[in-house]
Formats: sequence, structure tokens, C-alpha cells
Amino acid sequence: MKPAYRRRRLSEDGIIRILKARFPARSPLVETGIGDDAAVLRALPAPKCWIVTTDMLIEGVDFRQNWTTPAQLGRKALAVNLSDLAAMGADPLFYTVALALPRPVDPTWISGFFRGLTSLGHKSGADLIGGDLSSSPSGIGIAITALGVPAGRRAVRRSGGKAGDLLYVTGSLGRSAAGLKLLQSGVLQGRRRAERDALRAHLIPEPRCEVGAWLGRSGLPHCMMDLSDGLSVDLPRLCEASGTGAEICAASLPRFPESLAWQCDPLELAFHGGEDFELLFAVPPAKASLLEKRYPSKFPPLSRIGILTTASGVRWRPAPGAKARPLVAKGYDHFCR
Amino acid sequence: MKPAYRRRRLSEDGIIRILKARFPARSPLVETGIGDDAAVLRALPAPKCWIVTTDMLIEGVDFRQNWTTPAQLGRKALAVNLSDLAAMGADPLFYTVALALPRPVDPTWISGFFRGLTSLGHKSGADLIGGDLSSSPSGIGIAITALGVPAGRRAVRRSGGKAGDLLYVTGSLGRSAAGLKLLQSGVLQGRRRAERDALRAHLIPEPRCEVGAWLGRSGLPHCMMDLSDGLSVDLPRLCEASGTGAEICAASLPRFPESLAWQCDPLELAFHGGEDFELLFAVPPAKASLLEKRYPSKFPPLSRIGILTTASGVRWRPAPGAKARPLVAKGYDHFCR
Repeated sequence: MKPAYRRRRLSEDGIIRILKARFPARSPLVETGIGDDAAVLRALPAPKCWIVTTDMLIEGVDFRQNWTTPAQLGRKALAVNLSDLAAMGADPLFYTVALALPRPVDPTWISGFFRGLTSLGHKSGADLIGGDLSSSPSGIGIAITALGVPAGRRAVRRSGGKAGDLLYVTGSLGRSAAGLKLLQSGVLQGRRRAERDALRAHLIPEPRCEVGAWLGRSGLPHCMMDLSDGLSVDLPRLCEASGTGAEICAASLPRFPESLAWQCDPLELAFHGGEDFELLFAVPPAKASLLEKRYPSKFPPLSRIGILTTASGVRWRPAPGAKARPLVAKGYDHFCR
Repeated sequence: MKPAYRRRRLSEDGIIRILKARFPARSPLVETGIGDDAAVLRALPAPKCWIVTTDMLIEGVDFRQNWTTPAQLGRKALAVNLSDLAAMGADPLFYTVALALPRPVDPTWISGFFRGLTSLGHKSGADLIGGDLSSSPSGIGIAITALGVPAGRRAVRRSGGKAGDLLYVTGSLGRSAAGLKLLQSGVLQGRRRAERDALRAHLIPEPRCEVGAWLGRSGLPHCMMDLSDGLSVDLPRLCEASGTGAEICAASLPRFPESLAWQCDPLELAFHGGEDFELLFAVPPAKASLLEKRYPSKFPPLSRIGILTTASGVRWRPAPGAKARPLVAKGYDHFCR
């Protein structure tokens, strides 16, 4: 290994100068943004709590460069963080970016990456306030920390669920995993609409910022999280935090049936596919009809998929009345085989 | 490349459970710490602004595993961030950690890393509130985001300096680079005290949290930054932000003369050595005697090294009255040769 200590700094100032000029913070809360030792954020007008999340993408683990454009990658790196804020019922406000890049640095790549990143940021009302740039001996690494505030009176955590609460998910499940399956089989540009939908879900996922904020303001969910690792992995996390079990009905699971066309099992992907970034939440039964009535029609569809239970563990039934069986958590390698 | 999508998650829950139990947040401001989609921080009692910084360490660029213990590495990863907060005159409160690790994950390594990290955190009054864990195809990557609040009425930025202000640094310069030189020459355990001092400065640097907070409260510095990339690189940044130049006197530079014993040039290292994490700040001349009188004797020594100038550029004189010459910024590769 060649000691490259601090050599990375040589071009860092130049890049930072460009970023500062091209992507200035818009919020009046930002007193100092990019370019100092740290960012300075003015106190919020009303006393509110802060929500803070950190999530990273690593080349070769979370993405491949030949599958994604720099702009898509920048966008997705922020999206996975905004999804975490949405899952707390929070509005995003600020984010920092730590970016490790192999040398030599390509200005076009950097420009595309930050364009994708900040365009989603602006759309979501979140400002880039700083970060760090480094060279990397091998592969790109991106770590983002996003800060937000509860859209309602308080944050919605994973831990507030009670037995009897009804479980809901937004959108459909398994679409991103179906897109990944296409990429892995060499389909980088979809010809049919379903293929393009699946690729888009995987490469430019849409964090449910508006839905999460609306749910936070509504005060209806007892608990909430985003689906990043697949329902069979994430639902047990919600249950563990809430001290409950859960039972879901496969017939109610919103899937992406078009993936049948490329030899996927839509139910398998709905259970075990990762990176859908849909919201999973539980609402007390007395408030379910209110939720379903008020839920804005412009939002992605809402599906009632099951119930939190006193008995621990997560079980599923193929259809109402069928025998319940344990839902086994599966990692990615077992998908689509 | 083997697609390892999401496989990293398999053991993440277990690690997070251990971290949550072993390193719980202590601050009453932390409503939700490790383990949810995001952390929830209660609003501060008094309206204060927030200071946010992100800094990362990359294996092969910032450290080598055979030079450092996991605990030293965890400690340093936080130290470089706390140093940025200190440079804003801020008290640290919280931090998140994004950690990418090659598989298989060694529990002893993780334990040591977080022990080193959190022990410095506790000493500095900062709580670990969350983060992200990922596998890495090659090499360790660590990105930390630290949050704090100004110790005084406001943050001290790089940009407030005025021509005529006197320049000060804390501690001595070039010690960490001298330690790096030892490591590069194969001296991993110092036999003499000076060697151990230099190695310690490089491997377990001490962020100047107390000094930065004291300076912030004093209201005396017009501008401040920490020295992470060496004076010849960092001072021009301070000058650029403040719209000034600077002139420094080499005779006044606090050095680490013991490094002569291993063929270093202490002046070269004081000018160009990185990672000293000392504070560089400027004070109006009318307040200099107040600063020097009040500066606590328990703090690392204070040196007045020069002055901010109307003329742009950074120049240096070997001794008072000698001819001034431009200070050339040098990257690491040129040290100690």
C-alpha cells in the first residue's frame, strides 16, 4: 500500500469551492453551510425535537457503477436517508455527505453525483450543509447524515405498536428487487414499461417523504418504519421494538406481478425483496376507517396487510382462514431462484 | 464482483443490539438513540444554534490497520470530528457513525473500535445516537457526523478575521507528522519518550474541545479553525474565508524539536505536517493581552505566530526583521525528505 496520507486534500478545496457556488443552501436556517469546519444552523423558531439518521452506500455491496449514472447514485444515496426520516414522520431539512472516491477524480462524475443528490434535496426541502471528501484506494463509499423535524407533534417510532393494531404498507412490494433481478441478468435498459418501472424503483427509488409527514401529522400510527431490507426482515424489527408479534395475509400483500415476465415470484419478492423504501406502520383498529377515509388519493395506494399480535413471532397465511405459518427472514441471495 | 446486496444486514441486528446495550446514550436530550430508523433529540432548553460536522477516515488513505489498534482508530475517528466542533467554539453533544467493514466481521474488533470511540465521547460529553453498519469489499471506511452547540453566544467561523488581528496556535506543530514518519520507518512502538509522544500524537490525537469551548465563551477570537492538513494548507483557507493575507514568523512557531533525532526537520513539519488538530485563531490586537492573561495555564501552551494582513497571500519570515517570503503549501509526500 502506498501511503497517500492527505494527498486527497490537494483538490478538495477546488471541489468544495465549486460545490459551495453551485449548490448553496436555500433555507434561512442555514447560517453557515459548505466550506467551514462545520455548518451552523439557526435555532428553530418553535421548540421542536430533531431527527437524525445516517445511512451509507458502498460500491460492490449496494451498487455497481455500470448499473447506475452518477446522478442516480447521488439521488439514491440521499433517498435512503430521506426514507428513514419519512419513517419517523419527519420533514427533512439538512444533510451532510461523506464521499470517498477512487483517484483520479472525474469532475463530470462529481458534478452529476451532486446534481442528482441536490435535486432530490431541493424537491424534498432539504439543504446540503457540508461534508467531507476523500480519496479511496478502491471503490466508492457514500455516507449521508440527514436531519429533520417531526411534521406532527412528535416522531413516530418503531416501538409504539400494540397487539390488535392493524398493519399497513404504502405502494407495492418487490418492485425494486425485480429491478435488481433485471440488472443482474444484464437488462440495463428496460424495453417494456414494467421493466422500466422495476429498474426505476431500484435505481431512483422515491422516498415517501410526503406520506411519512402526513402520517406523522395525522397522529394515527402507533409505530412506523421504512422497508429497506424486505418485509420478512423489517417486520420482525418493528415487532421486537413494539414487544408484539404479527400476522400477515399474503393475499393482501401489494406485489409487482409484472416481474413474473422475467421469472420472478412476485410473492417471494414482496416478502423478501429489499429496498422498496415503502412505509410500514400500525394503526389502532378504532382509527383504521379514519385513516382509510382521510388518506389522500394522490398518495401511493395503501394496503392493510395484517395485524400486530400478542403472540411473538411473525406468521403469515396464504389467504384468510388458511393455516398460519412462520415467516422466515431471507437474505438477498435466496431471491429469484 | 459478487453481488452481496443486503447480505451485510444478516448480522447487523445482532451488532446493533450489543451496541445499544453496551453504549447507551447518557444525555437526557436523547429521546431515542441507537436502533430506530433515526435518532430523536429533544429540543434544547434555550434556543441555541446547532453545529454539524462530518469527517471520515479511509483505510489506506488515513490509516493502516497494522499501525493502530481498533480502539485507537475508533477514538481518532471521533477525535477528528470533535476537533472540527472545537474549531467552531462548540461543545459536542451527539454523533452518528457509518462504519463499512470487510467480512467476516470480528466481534473483538467491533468491540474495541466502539470502546475507543465511546470512551472519548463520554470524556467529551458526546453521546453515540445511531449510525449505519455495512460490509465493505475492501478496506475499512468510517464516516462520523458530530453535532454540538456553541459554548458561547455564537459559533466562531473561519471568516471573521481582520487585517491586523494577531494569529495564535495552541500546542506544538509537527508532532503528529513526526509520529507518522516513525510509523513509516517501521517504528511502531517508541522506545524513547519523544518517540512515544509523537506516535501518540498521530494515533490518539487529543481534540482541543476544552480550549475551543473556552475561546468560544471568551468571545475573543474573530475567527478560528483546526489544523488538520498542516499550517501551510490550512492558514490560506482561514485567510481566504476572512479576505485577508497573513504573515508568520518561523521563530515563533511552536515545534517538536525531538523529531530531529529521527531525521525530521521540525520547522518543515511545523509548516507542512498534517493532523496536529491544534487550534489556529486570530484575535484583535486590543484584546491580545487579555487573551494571554486569562488563558488557563492548564491548557496546552499558546503561541503568537503572526498577524493577518491586508495584502493577500501567506508569507513567512525566518526571524523578526528578516526578509518575508511566500509560504508554499505542500502536500504530505514532500515531508521529511
